[in-house]
Amino acid sequence: MATIVLYSMNRTAQTTARLCFFPYSTRASIVDSRISFFHNTSVRRLTPLPGARWVPKATGVQFMSNGIAGKTATGRTRRSALLVAGAAAAVVGFVASASHFQRAEMATMITKTEETEISEKCKKFMSPPCTDVKVLQQKKEEMCTRMEMLIMETQAEFCRALEEVDGGKFKVDKWERKEGGGGISCVLQDGKVFEKAGVNVSVVFGNLTEEAAKQMRSRGKVLRGKDGILPFCAMGVSSVIHPKNPHIPTVHFNYRYFEIEEEDGECQALNSGGTDLTPTYVNKEDGAHFHNSLKEACEKHHPKYYPDFKKWCDRYFYIRHRGETRGIGGIFFDDMDSPSQEEAFSFVRSCAQTVVPCYLPIVYKHLDDPFSLEEKDWQQVRRGRYVEFNLVYDRGVKFGLATPGSRIESILMSLPLTAKWEYMHEPPKGSQEADTLEVLRNPKEWV
Amino acid sequence: MATIVLYSMNRTAQTTARLCFFPYSTRASIVDSRISFFHNTSVRRLTPLPGARWVPKATGVQFMSNGIAGKTATGRTRRSALLVAGAAAAVVGFVASASHFQRAEMATMITKTEETEISEKCKKFMSPPCTDVKVLQQKKEEMCTRMEMLIMETQAEFCRALEEVDGGKFKVDKWERKEGGGGISCVLQDGKVFEKAGVNVSVVFGNLTEEAAKQMRSRGKVLRGKDGILPFCAMGVSSVIHPKNPHIPTVHFNYRYFEIEEEDGECQALNSGGTDLTPTYVNKEDGAHFHNSLKEACEKHHPKYYPDFKKWCDRYFYIRHRGETRGIGGIFFDDMDSPSQEEAFSFVRSCAQTVVPCYLPIVYKHLDDPFSLEEKDWQQVRRGRYVEFNLVYDRGVKFGLATPGSRIESILMSLPLTAKWEYMHEPPKGSQEADTLEVLRNPKEWV
Repeated sequence: MATIVLYSMNRTAQTTARLCFFPYSTRASIVDSRISFFHNTSVRRLTPLPGARWVPKATGVQFMSNGIAGKTATGRTRRSALLVAGAAAAVVGFVASASHFQRAEMATMITKTEETEISEKCKKFMSPPCTDVKVLQQKKEEMCTRMEMLIMETQAEFCRALEEVDGGKFKVDKWERKEGGGGISCVLQDGKVFEKAGVNVSVVFGNLTEEAAKQMRSRGKVLRGKDGILPFCAMGVSSVIHPKNPHIPTVHFNYRYFEIEEEDGECQALNSGGTDLTPTYVNKEDGAHFHNSLKEACEKHHPKYYPDFKKWCDRYFYIRHRGETRGIGGIFFDDMDSPSQEEAFSFVRSCAQTVVPCYLPIVYKHLDDPFSLEEKDWQQVRRGRYVEFNLVYDRGVKFGLATPGSRIESILMSLPLTAKWEYMHEPPKGSQEADTLEVLRNPKEWV
Repeated sequence: MATIVLYSMNRTAQTTARLCFFPYSTRASIVDSRISFFHNTSVRRLTPLPGARWVPKATGVQFMSNGIAGKTATGRTRRSALLVAGAAAAVVGFVASASHFQRAEMATMITKTEETEISEKCKKFMSPPCTDVKVLQQKKEEMCTRMEMLIMETQAEFCRALEEVDGGKFKVDKWERKEGGGGISCVLQDGKVFEKAGVNVSVVFGNLTEEAAKQMRSRGKVLRGKDGILPFCAMGVSSVIHPKNPHIPTVHFNYRYFEIEEEDGECQALNSGGTDLTPTYVNKEDGAHFHNSLKEACEKHHPKYYPDFKKWCDRYFYIRHRGETRGIGGIFFDDMDSPSQEEAFSFVRSCAQTVVPCYLPIVYKHLDDPFSLEEKDWQQVRRGRYVEFNLVYDRGVKFGLATPGSRIESILMSLPLTAKWEYMHEPPKGSQEADTLEVLRNPKEWV
């Protein structure tokens, strides 16, 4: 039974050093390729399958175990990844709540997606995947393939759901990375509902530089490369959605996967990610729906996940120089490699599948909310804070900007279309704006 | 005769480490208290005094001599700072050029400002100075006093000149720093001409932390504190002006002074600063006027100053991830401590006095330029780049944000009121916007 070993106080320093492996543009959503798409119209229609439940197998968690990474097989010596029968999750519905929302309910269902051809699935993506479809078909049981299929699915699901509510279309850019791999950036700008919506996928691979390997070793990772060469692959899906209406909050998520192959063909695999909400005006009902959705996804895997990752999120999205959080948080976790690679993968898949149901109902709820110029102005000020966080603190952005050859437009697609910096802006006491600030200065419990 | 020892390739790393001593909010303009104010109306009226010239005394420069800092006396053992007869410069005029501009002409003139009471001068400041007027009077010949008077004068001169052109009034905030010292922030926001204009002065003092002292020692500064205590004072004036009309460029300057007292009462004193221009649309005539004004100020002190500091400026204001400079540059220098403290002080004074004549004529020239929505849009995109530079690269901002107790509003007053991030923005070939980008991607010579 794995034990819970959460990060200590030195977490920040450690993760900063570690970040070198996780450029923002390479963040990955780990969603199993066996999962079928959300349908655009499903957001409001889905109902839970009776009796559909996820039984957590893990009774404990170990994040970033120093040197004891969860192992998965890959390369020539790869064994077929174990597919847990009946564990292919699909987001199948919302539980009707006492509020405007139907909550996301993760449920297991035995699907026949294993039999579905990769090429059929790829037709539904926003673009052909980064890796050649034939290669994906040949290696369809390998974790890297499952990951790539699932970040592509997550991108497509989310983009279609946003297109449906906005009426606009995403601009799709497929780009290649000279050193290996590439990405697909989808951006919907100046739409009817969304000021700027970006959903980015990237899949990069190559050999770990000596510097990066040294850093991994320095934090306890035992790395034995074949002739000193350590092949890695890193992939992810990341997204930031800035709506026009100040009563619709901004959402951000990213799910990513990093795998490094050692001389014996064994892999160290790490999963990271999170989803968080940034409202211009804090709305208790929205906050409760958002956090409850995430909590439910987490609890299918471990009772400690939600409370621990909620705290981690509040710590991470903290604008230190302002003494306030960027938004009302959500969940955030790094370098998960336990209790098994399959379990870690299942958890991240659950999280990725919760993105649409935790956010879209909030969008629909506020779609026609009237707003004043003053409210729009406050939104612009908060957007300025968003820029401050992303450019000053966000590790992914910082790493991306510092990495030669990064695709800057994909990294900075997270910035809002417009933002404002008013000198000495302080909302009047008792105003809705002041109430929001109060919450950002003192993160609260939402569930 | 001092020799020229310019920084080597490792300059960036060195200055980053060094920065801990120079928060943005403590940057100082070194201008002699004997200099009388510009008058508001002087910008367009001034004419050169016949025969008024500045004779450079330095035949060589040493920047950041490792361990060989220029010395000035202070504390109980301070000797009166040497006042070079006739060296008190006043900005007295512009040489009429073939263009719209009269160029700034620095000229020496013997003034009687030494006899002017400090208290009389203080009446013209934007606020009472940070240091008590009586203390300034008692120590009027000490460098720290001369510096404080001159950063206050620079602030007042520039603010009055901007108020005259805008018609609005600066909001003045005097603030205190718990640990010692304080500052005066002047901001004119949403005026007729200026979207956001900030002119900030700060004067901070205290004892160098062991960490900071260690860093200074590590770069060759021999520091002998009395009982391990190293008192320091740091002061500066910094400003960023963002006009509304996209044909009026943004200007930035900062001049700062850092002094550390050793056990024998001797001081190590360092002067730093620069002035640079960020146009939305590059205008050759404006660029030539701006750079010529700075060149003339520099050449009164040393023929190498302008070419060296121009290059340094282009290197510093480089947005690496965009592969472009923030603007068309100007001058930039760090840690000047030679050939003598008095000479370094004189040079910085000349620079500070050039701020109004190098910028205001450009403002007046474009005051009534018509502009389109597209031009305003391009300005907003460029403002986004300005934000990127300031939050990602500017050492002063980075240091300020990382320093507990910093006055964030003063540090971030450099950010524009509004900015924009359009995904994949690329101006059409042959457009004025593309021409501007071309210059930013390939810095040119302006004089």
